[in-house]
Amino acid sequence: MGSNHPDAQLYPHASGAALQMVKDHEAEQSLKLYSGWFCPFVQRVLIVLLEKNIPFKYIEVNPYHKPQSLLSLNPRGLVPTLQYANKPLYESTVICEFLEEAYPDSTPHLLPKDPYQRAYGRIWSDFVTSRIIPAFHRALQYQLHADGNSEAGFKEVKSELISKLREFTEAMDPEGPFFLGKEISMVDLIIAPWAVRLWVFDHFKGGLELGDEKWVERWGRWLKGIEKRESVVKSTSEREHYLPIYKRYADDVAQSELAKATRQGRGVP
Amino acid sequence: MGSNHPDAQLYPHASGAALQMVKDHEAEQSLKLYSGWFCPFVQRVLIVLLEKNIPFKYIEVNPYHKPQSLLSLNPRGLVPTLQYANKPLYESTVICEFLEEAYPDSTPHLLPKDPYQRAYGRIWSDFVTSRIIPAFHRALQYQLHADGNSEAGFKEVKSELISKLREFTEAMDPEGPFFLGKEISMVDLIIAPWAVRLWVFDHFKGGLELGDEKWVERWGRWLKGIEKRESVVKSTSEREHYLPIYKRYADDVAQSELAKATRQGRGVP
Ligand SMILES: N[C@@H](CCC(=O)N[C@@H](CS)C(=O)NCC(=O)O)C(=O)O
Ligand SMILES: N[C@@H](CCC(=O)N[C@@H](CS)C(=O)NCC(=O)O)C(=O)O
Repeated sequence: MGSNHPDAQLYPHASGAALQMVKDHEAEQSLKLYSGWFCPFVQRVLIVLLEKNIPFKYIEVNPYHKPQSLLSLNPRGLVPTLQYANKPLYESTVICEFLEEAYPDSTPHLLPKDPYQRAYGRIWSDFVTSRIIPAFHRALQYQLHADGNSEAGFKEVKSELISKLREFTEAMDPEGPFFLGKEISMVDLIIAPWAVRLWVFDHFKGGLELGDEKWVERWGRWLKGIEKRESVVKSTSEREHYLPIYKRYADDVAQSELAKATRQGRGVP
Repeated sequence: MGSNHPDAQLYPHASGAALQMVKDHEAEQSLKLYSGWFCPFVQRVLIVLLEKNIPFKYIEVNPYHKPQSLLSLNPRGLVPTLQYANKPLYESTVICEFLEEAYPDSTPHLLPKDPYQRAYGRIWSDFVTSRIIPAFHRALQYQLHADGNSEAGFKEVKSELISKLREFTEAMDPEGPFFLGKEISMVDLIIAPWAVRLWVFDHFKGGLELGDEKWVERWGRWLKGIEKRESVVKSTSEREHYLPIYKRYADDVAQSELAKATRQGRGVP
């Protein structure tokens, strides 16, 4: 895939708070993260690294103009890709669990000690990837004026996303503020990048209108805790630079693997 | 969903080797598995339970005629559902990891000690669920004589499945016999139920024709080790009783969540 990939023209590096974070991780380290500053799957990994204060080198790559350094580690050519002791790892959720296991002394621990609680969190982490993200993209990429599409169809894809967010929220510990209770854990970080990108619906799609049912208060309380979390703030760039990228999704012209999978009705690549 | 679900008319219980296994697990236990004897996702969990010799009670339910006992544990109404210390767990991959963590003294250990090896296995377990199973079902449910379908289209869905099996096989330890090497591990068990069901393509779809490239030998060697594994044998029923169930998939009239998701082009529900 050459530089003629239609999505390749993106802002070349992190900005805002994330620019400083990148500068703080320029030094050589044995742990290397191949990253795209805009990528929510990468942000999952960044949040874990920053939460646990694990030393790593940040390497910006453009996954739509895949350098050989990325492809030789990860034949799928996706970010995030991790290089650990010269060996590659990929798939954001796998990397996040790996960091928890490979750095057992780095706190906070993002998986609770109790096996039942760990499993409960994993059910809902899986729900994020298999249900929420595809619903997010179906709603974002919906074209009101495309063949066969209608206001009713648009309402339906938006309701589907909202009902997934409700289901997720209703599985939370009622007190919180985090999903499993007082302490932040993996499942909070697994959904965080999409939660802090819900503004794209306000900007491009006239808003999601969550309503005022009981769960919305709990969701709002959870989101507040996440939005101000240092690891989240430090891994977020300036909104203006996300805009052109998300505009391509909102216009359904993006050609990323995720955009194409969504058009085929499929899940996360 | 009442008893009028079109898939509800299935053989009511395990048979063959699995019938004996079920009888050996009729006694009351605090760990309970809500099972469908025919279900490959259930078989993942059974293999782990049998490998590790964990005491459990087997409870047969018909997930197409969902009893309240199942729905009150798992609102998704899917098997496998586990009841552990009176609390529910579901999603086969989550349950499998849970059993490994909740019974740390039961051997064999199905996750290696080395965090990198664990993560490597998880990448490929995820590949099974997100790529191989959807490709398996797209090929199985392909209707040669449906509108717009053709021999070429059928070849394409079969090649897609074969190429996923090749990719999986090429990620194996070259010596084996198992995926990660000498010892069986989670990733072997995660794919096993579909591997031992590949005969459905011979029976209903004229065979898969894996060819004679190098990987096919490695795949065959792996499969041999899996097919004769006691936990796999003991969790398998007689072929004749799988036949009517898989015929409904092969004719693309099955109405399970998985069958419907496949028709929509989506992944595993
Ligand atoms: N399943 C992968 C998805 C990663 C992914 O889709 N990354 C995008 C950037 S956000 C990418 O690398 N896209 C390149 C492409 O689509 O060719 C994960 O969880 O890490
Ligand atoms: N993601 C689930 C899938 C389980 C599943 O689809 N089970 C099927 C039986 S093989 C089921 O319960 N189907 C009921 C239905 O489709 O309504 C898992 O991994 O446990």
